[in-house]
Amino acid sequence: MNPTIFTIPIQQLASGDRLSIQVYKFIGANPGKKAYLQANLHGAEIVGNAVIQQLIEFLLTIDDTQLHGEIWLVPVCNPVSTNQRTHYFSTGRYNPSDGKDWNRIFWDFEKECDNLQEFAKSHINLEIDAIRNEYFKRIKTRFDKLLEKINSPSGAPFNERYRYQLQSLCIDADYVIDIHSSSNQAIDYLYGFWRREESAKYFLLDYGILLDEYDGDAFDEAFIKPWLALEDQLEKLGNKIRFDIDSWTLELGSGMQMNPESVTKGVRGIKNYLTQKGMLAISGFPLSETASDNPTFVSKSRIIKYYAPVGGMIQARVVLGTSVKAGDKLYQVINFNKQDDLPIVIDICAEKAGLVFDVSTNHALNEGEYVLSVM
Amino acid sequence: MNPTIFTIPIQQLASGDRLSIQVYKFIGANPGKKAYLQANLHGAEIVGNAVIQQLIEFLLTIDDTQLHGEIWLVPVCNPVSTNQRTHYFSTGRYNPSDGKDWNRIFWDFEKECDNLQEFAKSHINLEIDAIRNEYFKRIKTRFDKLLEKINSPSGAPFNERYRYQLQSLCIDADYVIDIHSSSNQAIDYLYGFWRREESAKYFLLDYGILLDEYDGDAFDEAFIKPWLALEDQLEKLGNKIRFDIDSWTLELGSGMQMNPESVTKGVRGIKNYLTQKGMLAISGFPLSETASDNPTFVSKSRIIKYYAPVGGMIQARVVLGTSVKAGDKLYQVINFNKQDDLPIVIDICAEKAGLVFDVSTNHALNEGEYVLSVM
Amino acid sequence: MNPTIFTIPIQQLASGDRLSIQVYKFIGANPGKKAYLQANLHGAEIVGNAVIQQLIEFLLTIDDTQLHGEIWLVPVCNPVSTNQRTHYFSTGRYNPSDGKDWNRIFWDFEKECDNLQEFAKSHINLEIDAIRNEYFKRIKTRFDKLLEKINSPSGAPFNERYRYQLQSLCIDADYVIDIHSSSNQAIDYLYGFWRREESAKYFLLDYGILLDEYDGDAFDEAFIKPWLALEDQLEKLGNKIRFDIDSWTLELGSGMQMNPESVTKGVRGIKNYLTQKGMLAISGFPLSETASDNPTFVSKSRIIKYYAPVGGMIQARVVLGTSVKAGDKLYQVINFNKQDDLPIVIDICAEKAGLVFDVSTNHALNEGEYVLSVM
Amino acid sequence: MNPTIFTIPIQQLASGDRLSIQVYKFIGANPGKKAYLQANLHGAEIVGNAVIQQLIEFLLTIDDTQLHGEIWLVPVCNPVSTNQRTHYFSTGRYNPSDGKDWNRIFWDFEKECDNLQEFAKSHINLEIDAIRNEYFKRIKTRFDKLLEKINSPSGAPFNERYRYQLQSLCIDADYVIDIHSSSNQAIDYLYGFWRREESAKYFLLDYGILLDEYDGDAFDEAFIKPWLALEDQLEKLGNKIRFDIDSWTLELGSGMQMNPESVTKGVRGIKNYLTQKGMLAISGFPLSETASDNPTFVSKSRIIKYYAPVGGMIQARVVLGTSVKAGDKLYQVINFNKQDDLPIVIDICAEKAGLVFDVSTNHALNEGEYVLSVM
Repeated sequence: MNPTIFTIPIQQLASGDRLSIQVYKFIGANPGKKAYLQANLHGAEIVGNAVIQQLIEFLLTIDDTQLHGEIWLVPVCNPVSTNQRTHYFSTGRYNPSDGKDWNRIFWDFEKECDNLQEFAKSHINLEIDAIRNEYFKRIKTRFDKLLEKINSPSGAPFNERYRYQLQSLCIDADYVIDIHSSSNQAIDYLYGFWRREESAKYFLLDYGILLDEYDGDAFDEAFIKPWLALEDQLEKLGNKIRFDIDSWTLELGSGMQMNPESVTKGVRGIKNYLTQKGMLAISGFPLSETASDNPTFVSKSRIIKYYAPVGGMIQARVVLGTSVKAGDKLYQVINFNKQDDLPIVIDICAEKAGLVFDVSTNHALNEGEYVLSVM
Repeated sequence: MNPTIFTIPIQQLASGDRLSIQVYKFIGANPGKKAYLQANLHGAEIVGNAVIQQLIEFLLTIDDTQLHGEIWLVPVCNPVSTNQRTHYFSTGRYNPSDGKDWNRIFWDFEKECDNLQEFAKSHINLEIDAIRNEYFKRIKTRFDKLLEKINSPSGAPFNERYRYQLQSLCIDADYVIDIHSSSNQAIDYLYGFWRREESAKYFLLDYGILLDEYDGDAFDEAFIKPWLALEDQLEKLGNKIRFDIDSWTLELGSGMQMNPESVTKGVRGIKNYLTQKGMLAISGFPLSETASDNPTFVSKSRIIKYYAPVGGMIQARVVLGTSVKAGDKLYQVINFNKQDDLPIVIDICAEKAGLVFDVSTNHALNEGEYVLSVM
Repeated sequence: MNPTIFTIPIQQLASGDRLSIQVYKFIGANPGKKAYLQANLHGAEIVGNAVIQQLIEFLLTIDDTQLHGEIWLVPVCNPVSTNQRTHYFSTGRYNPSDGKDWNRIFWDFEKECDNLQEFAKSHINLEIDAIRNEYFKRIKTRFDKLLEKINSPSGAPFNERYRYQLQSLCIDADYVIDIHSSSNQAIDYLYGFWRREESAKYFLLDYGILLDEYDGDAFDEAFIKPWLALEDQLEKLGNKIRFDIDSWTLELGSGMQMNPESVTKGVRGIKNYLTQKGMLAISGFPLSETASDNPTFVSKSRIIKYYAPVGGMIQARVVLGTSVKAGDKLYQVINFNKQDDLPIVIDICAEKAGLVFDVSTNHALNEGEYVLSVM
Repeated sequence: MNPTIFTIPIQQLASGDRLSIQVYKFIGANPGKKAYLQANLHGAEIVGNAVIQQLIEFLLTIDDTQLHGEIWLVPVCNPVSTNQRTHYFSTGRYNPSDGKDWNRIFWDFEKECDNLQEFAKSHINLEIDAIRNEYFKRIKTRFDKLLEKINSPSGAPFNERYRYQLQSLCIDADYVIDIHSSSNQAIDYLYGFWRREESAKYFLLDYGILLDEYDGDAFDEAFIKPWLALEDQLEKLGNKIRFDIDSWTLELGSGMQMNPESVTKGVRGIKNYLTQKGMLAISGFPLSETASDNPTFVSKSRIIKYYAPVGGMIQARVVLGTSVKAGDKLYQVINFNKQDDLPIVIDICAEKAGLVFDVSTNHALNEGEYVLSVM
């Protein structure tokens, strides 16, 4: 089957050139859910582009009767960040004009929804689909208002223009998959939300971090938070329902590269997920290991990040993916000085046991720069 | 009188070199209040360094009997940001490793003080000084705990180390004055807090913005917010007291320069403020115009910022300091394209009346970049 | 008359988006010379975009019989540099991946022309136009070879791809005008070459710098150097001819802005130049002041640049455009330290008399950073 | 034995803080040659800091009678570049204020020595040491003049101040070893000069690049070029002498890391070199493999660098260290577009056979960005 392809201008540059995003829409012969996938929101995190390219290749080979619903795919979804360079590194993690993390800019209906309790009360006796429709209408009404500000004479900063375009594409989706990697170096894992552990398993990754606390305004959060909040309200009122709405951030390896194993895992996991969700009917899926798969889920608040206690150069760091015990040596710093002393070597040990799942690419560190994370 | 001078290491760099800050403490012969002044928290905003250098020059000429209390002065208070460069511009507005605005990183006791109402109830019948002492003890106890995290094996990111050092210097101050400028180009004005309008006048600036909404975690906010919150609580309980605690951000002109008129205004305003507050006994102050001075105060929420609706080059922009009416032309954009069309010129007009108080230094703008602000 | 407009892709970005340049070609009804104008080769130097936009507006109003030959105009000629940003400054002076100044990358036939003397000997008796044709053929043959490298599997770095596109447009021009400004702040002046002082006057600017020494590989140099070298050789052999080939760099004011007076001067000067050269027949030109105009020409080697002797903040700098005598005070530095000393103020005086024609935008300077230039 | 340690201020920053370098001098009990070693001239190339730290550790364990002559060691020799950061990458390859590569700024006596032929003629009959002394005096006299410019009111840009400090330390050395790595990712090899192949072997590295062409003004070149030029002149005049003066750049692996194998190889090679040169008398050295070692030397002009022909993401790149034949596939690009087309995958093949010795860290590439090098 062939996709329809749309090109959407995202930003006109000072030079008059335009950056755009391109949406590949595969529309199944049968109605169904809508899955929205994007990649490369942070400039260095390119791995998802290969995942999406392989998914497109694959979808081209199937028949449209094998797809229920729609799959929308947006590779290189943030051309501004993808093209940011310093020296020859991809430094597109923050918007250079306001310092904002490209994944902390999204519009979150929950923050504007002051009467959620009231809504829950007045709709609690409806069918789940009716509740969903009514709630979605409210989200959509508010979302549409964002355009007024953008089109006013005072305009809106680029972050607000950009998020409007991107969130327009997924606001009515059922499943959102945002493919990232570490901007540094990391293992493969995913970020998911509480009450969605069961479908998290479909991705067949060994590790998952459950977002029990939020940085705020991330793409995955902005999509699902309003629905989780509504579930909470309804549950408080005695109606324990779960919307079939999911939001995932896949973290596939390291920055500035597309590790083939990570790409393969990503493609396999997404196919399995979409099959399990009933969108794809393809041979070999769902994979039999899905049932037995028993990933490790860790709460975000339990992660410990390590920062250099002095300026210097790190060496003898434990290998990415190592499980450490409390007190195990994590890394050394060679510490130079400019006060007529010899260089010294300092050992840093683990505060708690855990898995070293993310490490800095750069081993030259100012005091207080990031070294590694343990989950 | 001579100051005592302390040098405090702030960060050891990867190279082993250290960046420090230097505190000039002028201790009066008579006990009294403590004023804390700093400059150059944002790298481009250097004007306060000249203000502080002139204040030091001046204080050297007076006798210690003319000073009641202590004045602490910290020029170039953020050497990391001051020394940030790209090309030859001072680009030190955000921490390059986490994108955080250098003035949105400070520790705010109010966020951790979960039992404020209880505290207010149990202390409402004490004298104001006793309330202050008890509350300060709680702030200090929590603040001191920050050091535990910093000294743990996992350490703390530089922002947390740095803020600890800087807030240590002012946590027990009565008056905090943080001297900024626009990182772009601006008139002279100040940021102040509600219920402090009266002493705002002492600075003799024509304009002030009252913080009725917060960006959060700014230096001035972090210092005064816990006290404002306590005043609120006590007032709700029927005890309307005002602590003699002030927090100001002076905005003196444009970035990357020390405009002589702005410096003079800053020095004059600070001398007048400190005299009015009873700290300085110096000839010629307080200035007689203080009484008659009638600055314009505007709420922060009323400011309108304009962003470029297209990419291009701006021209014919209204001059900084102009008062505009709704519909007045604010600026033009020459808009090029790469689609075989002629360049076009677009007019942008004011949404509302107001004073153009801040304008972008750069006239080449991507779509959604900042152009100017109207108060 | 209307131009024909061409859009030429310059670079495909990692995201798949493309940056382009656009050429506006005004073709006269009568044959004649070819003038090539471009602007904004350095990202911050946007003033020429307004000059070219106004020239386009003007040319639209004339009849094609008033133009002899062709005028090609390329605003925003380097979209890569125009769109470079750090914080909100235009930092597009160097290619971020190799550090090369965008105006030191151009292909210079003279460096590859090993048999110039031989060529001069064997063609010395031809008519000037015949010599020109033969020499141009050699330039063109070599230039065309650059494409082989670009199209090879190993490819070519962006600088070589870009220069090929830009130099393709002007290689057969008679007059090249490259519109710059200071990336800092400067007066209006031009860069020209020896033996071209007479036509330099047509631009009606008060100051000119004659390139008696080269930085190397600048756009203006790369265009004219081979012709100057041939003139030299022929003159050595006794044939003193001058090709009607000119190359100019106009410097119109300061970076990141389009000062209206500088724009007006630029437009006026270019109209006058093109009229004097016989390309335009327009009312009011050539201006009568051309004859009497007596600009000051200074050799590049005589310029003195001043660099900060210590780190600090500069103040009391002489105003841009001031004529100083040797020993006159040029600027002060407030010099802080982190060694428990008071700040000090240092005066820096002029080594030689001259005109202060360029000054740094940034007044916060590390030791050895640029302060100002005297011609 | 213990070193004497000197700290030399290199730059005062705008904030008043100072960056310094520190020299560790090990002075043998016996007179002899002077070896000068430095590391980390480019900010990302930190590996040599570990090499020098281990050499210091080692030298502390030997007796001063085991050292003939002096070894000077300068780790983190360019604190400006070491501390440069964008995002969390070490982007210290170019000076941010002038774009100059930190290893293309050094003073080269050969460029100023206009009467070399004359010097050679007038000294040809002296003993080699006498020639060396006389020539060194001339170098030193010119070098000392650089200080006049630095101390003049107009001062000198930072590059000139810095190079003066660094070259002061090594100008009278016999052997200069500058430890680099790739700023990207590379194998271990060295850069050496013609006529020095024999001592190149002492480093026991498998590969070497002989500088038959110069980028110009690199640290290694600036030190040895004047001596090579004198050897050439003397040889032309019939006196084929070789000064015992060496200059090496070791390239030990990849940027932003200190690979333990590369560090070990570096330490071992330097110990072996210094033993072979008679400076060190230590057990186990020189290593017996020195005689049999047969490294591959390649001329710099034979290296082929590959640049991305389109913008996109590279995958399936040959592994670093692979030997390829002409026509072998080197890498693929996934090429997205914003023109409603499907992504495509493009293969790039080797132009010539050779060893892939350096590859880009970043796999997201704009058109014309660097991919890999083949020697």
